[in-house]
Amino acid sequence: MKKTYSRKEIKGFIDVANLSELKKAMNTWHSPEIAGLVETLPDNQKAIVFSVLPAVAVVKTFKVLELATRKSLIKHLEHEQAAKILNEIQPDDRTEFLSELPGKTVKELLKLLSEKERKVTLSLLGYPNHSVGRLMTPDYIAVKQDWTVKHVLDYVREHGQDKETVNVIYVIDDNGKLIDDIRIREFLFVTHEKKVSELMDYKYISFVVTDKEESAINVFRKNNRVALPVTDEFGILLGIITIDDVLRLAEKEETEDIQKIGGLEVLDEPYMNIPFLKLMKKRSGWLIILFLGEMLTASAMGHYADDYQKVWQLGLFLPLIISSGGNSGSQASTLIIRAMALGEVTLRDWWRIMKREIFSGLFLGFVLGGIGFIRVLTWTLFTPIYGPHYFLIALVVGFALIGVVLWGTLSGSMLPLILKRAGADPATSSAPFVATLVDVTGLIIYFSVAVLILKGIML
Amino acid sequence: MKKTYSRKEIKGFIDVANLSELKKAMNTWHSPEIAGLVETLPDNQKAIVFSVLPAVAVVKTFKVLELATRKSLIKHLEHEQAAKILNEIQPDDRTEFLSELPGKTVKELLKLLSEKERKVTLSLLGYPNHSVGRLMTPDYIAVKQDWTVKHVLDYVREHGQDKETVNVIYVIDDNGKLIDDIRIREFLFVTHEKKVSELMDYKYISFVVTDKEESAINVFRKNNRVALPVTDEFGILLGIITIDDVLRLAEKEETEDIQKIGGLEVLDEPYMNIPFLKLMKKRSGWLIILFLGEMLTASAMGHYADDYQKVWQLGLFLPLIISSGGNSGSQASTLIIRAMALGEVTLRDWWRIMKREIFSGLFLGFVLGGIGFIRVLTWTLFTPIYGPHYFLIALVVGFALIGVVLWGTLSGSMLPLILKRAGADPATSSAPFVATLVDVTGLIIYFSVAVLILKGIML
Repeated sequence: MKKTYSRKEIKGFIDVANLSELKKAMNTWHSPEIAGLVETLPDNQKAIVFSVLPAVAVVKTFKVLELATRKSLIKHLEHEQAAKILNEIQPDDRTEFLSELPGKTVKELLKLLSEKERKVTLSLLGYPNHSVGRLMTPDYIAVKQDWTVKHVLDYVREHGQDKETVNVIYVIDDNGKLIDDIRIREFLFVTHEKKVSELMDYKYISFVVTDKEESAINVFRKNNRVALPVTDEFGILLGIITIDDVLRLAEKEETEDIQKIGGLEVLDEPYMNIPFLKLMKKRSGWLIILFLGEMLTASAMGHYADDYQKVWQLGLFLPLIISSGGNSGSQASTLIIRAMALGEVTLRDWWRIMKREIFSGLFLGFVLGGIGFIRVLTWTLFTPIYGPHYFLIALVVGFALIGVVLWGTLSGSMLPLILKRAGADPATSSAPFVATLVDVTGLIIYFSVAVLILKGIML
Repeated sequence: MKKTYSRKEIKGFIDVANLSELKKAMNTWHSPEIAGLVETLPDNQKAIVFSVLPAVAVVKTFKVLELATRKSLIKHLEHEQAAKILNEIQPDDRTEFLSELPGKTVKELLKLLSEKERKVTLSLLGYPNHSVGRLMTPDYIAVKQDWTVKHVLDYVREHGQDKETVNVIYVIDDNGKLIDDIRIREFLFVTHEKKVSELMDYKYISFVVTDKEESAINVFRKNNRVALPVTDEFGILLGIITIDDVLRLAEKEETEDIQKIGGLEVLDEPYMNIPFLKLMKKRSGWLIILFLGEMLTASAMGHYADDYQKVWQLGLFLPLIISSGGNSGSQASTLIIRAMALGEVTLRDWWRIMKREIFSGLFLGFVLGGIGFIRVLTWTLFTPIYGPHYFLIALVVGFALIGVVLWGTLSGSMLPLILKRAGADPATSSAPFVATLVDVTGLIIYFSVAVLILKGIML
């Protein structure tokens, strides 16, 4: 990497609007670096940097900018420049960008597109959100099976320049139906006279345009491909999906999953860039729901008020017991959410998962219950706090732990499956959500065990 | 996709060892499908399927198998077949596979490699774990800048067959120093007489061999490349990293992060395949640590035993208050862990994060505290349970919530940074870990607020 200008120098050029020096400097930078710089500039200065970039760099840089920056940039650019960017970015990137904007803005921007590009974009926007149709680009190279290798290479030379990738060549029949895909290297390894049909193995993997975006990630992970074709339901080739878009999509999906598991709404913007009030809205939503749910503990506690006034020692272990349920539940739900996202388990495995988690819950319950039981007995040697019935209290703690951990594990593992079955995202069964659910029920389990064991003796 | 044989038919062929039919059937299948089939077979039958596969399919299929399957398969294959697989898979995949095996097995397997492959593998294994050196393949095409395009294409034709990718060609000087990378398409678009130097722009992005694997993921995300070069500290080209390996690495890293956030040790194996006792070991470790930590709540409660015997109503809100701290803490830590993984924030931003989280904590605390305060006052209209000092109790609940939520938010957001500073993985500050930490301190905050407000009146 060559870097002959420092960031400070560049900012100096921008401040005094020395466009010729700025242009020279930008020429030595890579688009990710330029993007990094643009992110840190105030909105009006972003447009200045873009005004001096060569067309290729404009498109490359725009593509890697944060969504928020792209939005504000598009607003600050002159119409001509915005049109240039929109027309020159790849159709799939344009679709992705437009689909994040409000409908009104999209309409405005569509006007800036050329007739041809508008047609492509509108057709891509027509596919359902989160379908592979939204992810694909129609910029691919398709050839016929009776062509010679020379014909193909000439064709690539002539039409390849503005295609997103020429690494894979697609073979279609006269109706446009996909019949094979061949890597460009195969054409390099053979003589020019060979026919395309001689290179074909009729083996290919393809998506249907309505397939879910998420499924594309797993297919790319399992197959070593840089691009895969997309067809309609009749097998007509419509476009291709490239692995760089899949890598970015995977990142977005993981971030969403992780944020949901952590118990907040998906941010859609980097932590440092999101406005404070928007961040609060995303975070307070779930916290309030969880808080309202957790209020049930206060009601449940009210129900057992008599009992724990009589045996106040029960209160000592309350946080310990309900949090153990919450922890084992968070663990189980995270495990299943991730296994589902990776396609390791599906809804049909529910019974196998349940069996596994019943045994897991019992095992973990006995371990923690055992430790709790021993804890009470040991402390009794040093403090009179548990009173004469310390052994019974130890039993209550031990058995309650077994019950609560088993219950936590089971509900934590089943909740993602139930959510999936109901058509919701399994990752919604976040760690805090499961913990709250198990807190309320764990409390009831604890006091029920206490009543069962202490009835007639202490209660 | 053609599928003329059903899975059941195939299993039939395997059972009666009808190898010729099996071979024919396998020929119509893709390697991911074959891998899917192999995963479901008993260990001894896995080797049968592999014995009929053509060399290319053997390598492709082996590459996408689960690690556990690969391990058992290698053991069950005859030495010759194992040697064939090991010699034919790409060096980077081989290195990845070998580095997951115990040292003794690696030694055994290294013997099966040819002289040349052994040398390559040993050199790759020499790079530190989790460095990009482990991820790279030395199977790339390097050319000199004074070559003609025709020379390059001839060279690709001759040497490209066994290279992992020919999509990017690397230009090196006489010392082997990397000076540029050029996409293969650029060679297709120009006349055969042009010199390589005329295609060069001297702009490239490269890794140093000791760079962290994780950093590679973010570089690939920001740049639209299918392969990037790796050099030593002096700029000598050593190998390349391909995007398909990065996609798989990203998946592994995300899984590890998610499992850590969920409060369990990294599994390293799919949920359904991992042996029960191993799963229990991975899960019980953290649960026991959290349980021991949570025991401090029992001790803390003991400390305030007098107080909550006098004002037993305080117990009613205990689960509500400590869990609110836990939830806000889990949320904050998840947010920061993910932002760090994506490179959105770094350690140097700690003060900006802290400021942001102090305001967030106060905001969220006032929201939840307000709801809690109103909750107590409202219930008082329907139940006498809170006694004559219900207003004071409402105040205790409200102020305790502000304190606990602020504290939870702050510790949740700072913990990942502290862990990172200490050289540990930020994701270790899992939701359950933060929740447990905040439970203990939240309890102390709650009772301190209670003592402060109720002193002399109820306490």
